[in-house]
Amino acid sequence: MNKFYHMPTKIIMGDNCIAGSSGLLAAMGAKALIVTGRHSARINGSLEDVTAVLTSNNQQYVIFDKVMANPTVECAYEGAAFARENSVDFVIAIGGGSPMDAAKAIALLAKQDIKEEVLFSGSYAQEVLPMAFIPTTAGTGSEVTQYSILTNHKAQTKTSIASPVLFPKLAFLDARYMAALSPSTTVNTAIDALSHSVEGMLSVRAGTISDSLAMESIRLISSCFGAMQANSLEHNMREKLLYASTLGGMVIANTGTTAVHSMGYSLTYYRDVDHGRANGLLLAAFLAFVEKSLPERVKTILDCMGLKQVEEFSALLDGLLGEKETISAQEIDSYSARAINTKNISNCIAVPGQEDLVKIFRDSFRM
Amino acid sequence: MNKFYHMPTKIIMGDNCIAGSSGLLAAMGAKALIVTGRHSARINGSLEDVTAVLTSNNQQYVIFDKVMANPTVECAYEGAAFARENSVDFVIAIGGGSPMDAAKAIALLAKQDIKEEVLFSGSYAQEVLPMAFIPTTAGTGSEVTQYSILTNHKAQTKTSIASPVLFPKLAFLDARYMAALSPSTTVNTAIDALSHSVEGMLSVRAGTISDSLAMESIRLISSCFGAMQANSLEHNMREKLLYASTLGGMVIANTGTTAVHSMGYSLTYYRDVDHGRANGLLLAAFLAFVEKSLPERVKTILDCMGLKQVEEFSALLDGLLGEKETISAQEIDSYSARAINTKNISNCIAVPGQEDLVKIFRDSFRM
Repeated sequence: MNKFYHMPTKIIMGDNCIAGSSGLLAAMGAKALIVTGRHSARINGSLEDVTAVLTSNNQQYVIFDKVMANPTVECAYEGAAFARENSVDFVIAIGGGSPMDAAKAIALLAKQDIKEEVLFSGSYAQEVLPMAFIPTTAGTGSEVTQYSILTNHKAQTKTSIASPVLFPKLAFLDARYMAALSPSTTVNTAIDALSHSVEGMLSVRAGTISDSLAMESIRLISSCFGAMQANSLEHNMREKLLYASTLGGMVIANTGTTAVHSMGYSLTYYRDVDHGRANGLLLAAFLAFVEKSLPERVKTILDCMGLKQVEEFSALLDGLLGEKETISAQEIDSYSARAINTKNISNCIAVPGQEDLVKIFRDSFRM
Repeated sequence: MNKFYHMPTKIIMGDNCIAGSSGLLAAMGAKALIVTGRHSARINGSLEDVTAVLTSNNQQYVIFDKVMANPTVECAYEGAAFARENSVDFVIAIGGGSPMDAAKAIALLAKQDIKEEVLFSGSYAQEVLPMAFIPTTAGTGSEVTQYSILTNHKAQTKTSIASPVLFPKLAFLDARYMAALSPSTTVNTAIDALSHSVEGMLSVRAGTISDSLAMESIRLISSCFGAMQANSLEHNMREKLLYASTLGGMVIANTGTTAVHSMGYSLTYYRDVDHGRANGLLLAAFLAFVEKSLPERVKTILDCMGLKQVEEFSALLDGLLGEKETISAQEIDSYSARAINTKNISNCIAVPGQEDLVKIFRDSFRM
């Protein structure tokens, strides 16, 4: 089976990197649409840094700050209409996965009149507003992927638009914006990133390049487990988590995700469990499932964390995630039935059946 | 200091990957210029694979097979004239570093009338013929870099053109083409790749992403040292070396090279020492120089090879490279004086003075 690697986004890393490479933003166009959420970009300094650079570059901007957590298809269409009304030349996304994923759909829909019925088909022309992304959490990796994950009420789940046209042109990684993240957001997003790198290594599309990125990502995140647990992350650890999440994004841009993500989407859609947390709740049990047929691969992953057994990994995640939600047998059956029909299942190096998914859910929730 | 990462080439990996992704070549245009050397592409099967796919895609092609080892500026201009005469739409390079580096300059000069006086300035428009690269040695990594290294008789050295427009669109990695490489070519090219990854970790531009790629590259190459020494490389090891060389290319695309390359260019230009061998002759002594001020960094590199001491690394390279050339004190002084004025020197995390370069040369040749 041939393997592929592609990730064309230019990444700029380090404190004050937006101001330090202001010419890169200047080259993007005369007028920007800034896509963000209601609050965080105003609090963590990222919005101010961006607008200061735009102003000093003599670039205009408008702000679309209506992106909610787990953004909807409707939100993307609203943002695209706003972009067209304001005749913007490019899009700047600031925030966690929600503003970044919404911004990709907005950049696409602002240039192309794509009806909702075919939005998730992935077959569009090349036209898209160029994008610069500024993550303010260290989890999603959306700044280096071609995916826009939107909540799709018609399908009653999260659905992804995937197209090479959605790779941002630029990603600015400045860990100062994560300094005041809450412990729970820090943990949930770090576990999301970890899940990307682990799942990337459990994908049939994993190759040497994605593995090298995934292994370093796993090493970096696990080196921060102790400080995450103690809520004592210094700036250099925030930076490790941020770079690890970008590495994880580069991984899934090439491998896709696995059963963990498709199972987790139901926890998020129906039970409002945070996306990263949902992955973290399921990850160890999925690893145990894969270990039965592919123990060497799982050993490689555990080695990166300095662990010997999946049980140790499970206990470690339990400590980070705290008390678990309760979930009924009926919910498990329903979520497993949904997940088994997703593309993510055949993407696993060890393909689970529906009864395996039920067992992974049950093991995850200690039922 | 902010760090950057960018490598937009799409990579396709695995046996028969050109035929397996023939649609990617089909999308490049109606008529190809194939740039290669006189012989090897005809012997190792790569040229036949490419022309079969082009024929089945109904694409036309012409072949420019005049690229010599260490291609000259004149060769690039000749190839560009041939490309224009034949009105080609895109360039396919097949070969080691020489055809690939020449092909980049040809693709650029075919679209833009750049005079030789400004060819090495790096400031050109975006226009370039799109490129698909097929390495047939596992060393240079040119398939994923923005560099074209040409022998420049006016400057009496090898000089690089560096521009983001020179990144190939596609790189096809098929290790079957390396099956019959001679032991010396195998060693020299593998050491070139190793040098890229090691030097990338010793560059001031090294960052988390380039490090993750470099470390895996070093691990992969060192896992093949024994088989290289015994001349018993199986297909899976050829594949490891090929992927490691591409990882090394991704590294130097972002870090550049260091003193080792600038010193080695004189050995190649004046003494006709193979490029990879030249790097290998100098690498351990440079590592010893860096170790004096930055022992932790050197330890990280040695760890990837399972080694404890620079001396072990030096002995290992001695075993692979065999008897060394003799070189005079006068040559060393002259080459050191040339190297100290190159950009590569300030790119080192431990910056050598001219007397350090003399000592590295002397240590390398046991003088």
